[in-house]
Amino acid sequence: MNKNLFVVLMAGGVGVRFWPYSRNSKPKQFLDVLGTGKTLLQSTCDRFLPLCPIENIYVVTHEEHEHLVRMQLPTLKPEQILSEPMRKNTAACIAYASYKIALKNPDAVVVVTPSDHLIMKEDEFQNIIRTSSEHAKGQDKLITVGIPPTRPETGYGYIQYLPEKPFIKKVKTFTEKPELSLAKKFIESGDFVWNSGIFIWGVQAILDAFHKFLPEMSEVFDDIKSKLNTPEERDVIHSAYPQCKSISIDYGIMEKAQNVYVCLGTFTWSDLGSWASIHEISDKDDNNNAIRANAQMYDTRNSIIRGSADKLIVVQGLNGYLVGEFGNVIIVCEKDKEEQFRRFVADLKAKPNSTDFV
Amino acid sequence: MNKNLFVVLMAGGVGVRFWPYSRNSKPKQFLDVLGTGKTLLQSTCDRFLPLCPIENIYVVTHEEHEHLVRMQLPTLKPEQILSEPMRKNTAACIAYASYKIALKNPDAVVVVTPSDHLIMKEDEFQNIIRTSSEHAKGQDKLITVGIPPTRPETGYGYIQYLPEKPFIKKVKTFTEKPELSLAKKFIESGDFVWNSGIFIWGVQAILDAFHKFLPEMSEVFDDIKSKLNTPEERDVIHSAYPQCKSISIDYGIMEKAQNVYVCLGTFTWSDLGSWASIHEISDKDDNNNAIRANAQMYDTRNSIIRGSADKLIVVQGLNGYLVGEFGNVIIVCEKDKEEQFRRFVADLKAKPNSTDFV
Repeated sequence: MNKNLFVVLMAGGVGVRFWPYSRNSKPKQFLDVLGTGKTLLQSTCDRFLPLCPIENIYVVTHEEHEHLVRMQLPTLKPEQILSEPMRKNTAACIAYASYKIALKNPDAVVVVTPSDHLIMKEDEFQNIIRTSSEHAKGQDKLITVGIPPTRPETGYGYIQYLPEKPFIKKVKTFTEKPELSLAKKFIESGDFVWNSGIFIWGVQAILDAFHKFLPEMSEVFDDIKSKLNTPEERDVIHSAYPQCKSISIDYGIMEKAQNVYVCLGTFTWSDLGSWASIHEISDKDDNNNAIRANAQMYDTRNSIIRGSADKLIVVQGLNGYLVGEFGNVIIVCEKDKEEQFRRFVADLKAKPNSTDFV
Repeated sequence: MNKNLFVVLMAGGVGVRFWPYSRNSKPKQFLDVLGTGKTLLQSTCDRFLPLCPIENIYVVTHEEHEHLVRMQLPTLKPEQILSEPMRKNTAACIAYASYKIALKNPDAVVVVTPSDHLIMKEDEFQNIIRTSSEHAKGQDKLITVGIPPTRPETGYGYIQYLPEKPFIKKVKTFTEKPELSLAKKFIESGDFVWNSGIFIWGVQAILDAFHKFLPEMSEVFDDIKSKLNTPEERDVIHSAYPQCKSISIDYGIMEKAQNVYVCLGTFTWSDLGSWASIHEISDKDDNNNAIRANAQMYDTRNSIIRGSADKLIVVQGLNGYLVGEFGNVIIVCEKDKEEQFRRFVADLKAKPNSTDFV
């Protein structure tokens, strides 16, 4: 248990690729996507409890979802829940949390993590966080966790590292979502890993990086930092956020900084970024169907069936589909066409009287 | 308006080919299948109102559905609703009604009709019933209505006639559900029509036919006929029905009798016997989808979408499917595989705790 270790759970996403399962009113991180009895946010939080005091765990979310965080993590104090008045991607979210933590504890080592991913072998995960936070302590190092790739996935970012050091390795390049041919070369070369979006750094190291690479953003937060951790925090954040540009921490800092390192995540990881990835990690029947429903299946393979317990779903003659009953929306579509979900939602929003379904 | 014309609406079916739309608790004839604002039973009844007094219209149904008939046809008196204690196919149903009607009016001409078919051009239909009932009056003739075929349908019965007479034509053969090659020959020959299951006969003609071709069944009804139209009717029917064999009027009488005639139904007719037939007669969108739902469609053709107004159904990438939300059951299956619905229901019944869904 490390009193100087702080955790920032990023819970601001909208999960549009899982509409209508994930809704505006309840994005993916607030759902029990894997049927474990815990939401992804709860599982992510629990994973850090052996590592640091619970009062060191911060959640950043959109203010419309603050009530969900309070409900799902009732042991967090109100000041541990950071509400964003608008979505500004990961850089602003991390700046906000980092400024707050620096005021609390200038010696803090901070772990920043998405709250909607799957991690299995949690012991292994905790060991890696422990070791990498030792490497980050008091150092000017930005450490990211890389996942050894198992397939030439084109939906992820790749990190190339110099394979010289035993635990943390110097990062050479970042590549966002490569073409398949390039992804295959990355896999063959052996010195590329997937970017998990999990970061470990000393709070001073990341604040220095903000000043260097996103100076306008750090200026905004420098102006208001005296009001953070005070009753005026919400007001000043409301005036600060509109001034922040919307940029990811990867584009804004990690791809530009020279002091970036990677440690290899030897635990099982999935970003749960698509129905295909949920299908992959789910239990399947003899026909490779992932079923969480009261379902009666005929001549159907490689599909996902989701529905509430009081409904019966009969499916015949499908291969590679999602059939889902999610509240007031029923969806039947090819499960691997990730991009289409964005279109479904956009088209729906363009229709009158659609708010009940978004 | 013909005071001697009586109508028997057969409403005893279970509509298993339309499960889960049609349920044990509400079979197809009690549903507004076509979205007209009337159930099929109501439409069938209304079709006869210009032809005979409403007190001459009888409905035969299973006793578990008696309440639905009362609700949907509230102007019928209780004695016009004939409840069967068990399903015994059409012969027993027709015998029951015919014995009752003969007691009321020995000069009756009776029209027997399914209550779950579609008929359009109702004027034309009424003209045919009027004319054929004139031909049946006081005659020993069993008249059936034949539909000029428009395709080599293998799901129907075919009637071959001698094309000698102007309105009612002597029937030569009956053929149930022919092979496709045979059905094609029937169509080519030009003297075959589909068996609509609508019959017109003098009540004495059909009672004579029962005595001749189903003597055991007429014996059962002869024994109890003094109790029909009395308070003891329900009791004697309960003891009579188990003694009746389960046989259709076609097999039991029409295929054996020599005095069978056919008149040609020049109205538009469908037995609505399958989702394919409902698709055929429904309004379709540009992609040949028949939609009665709040639906959002992508890359989908030749399909049927059904759902309640408060649900949204999103469908992508299907061709020739039924996607239906019917109360507590959601179904996705190929719409043209008629036989599979029987299997869905049988498999469901074999499962524990399935009664809510049947």
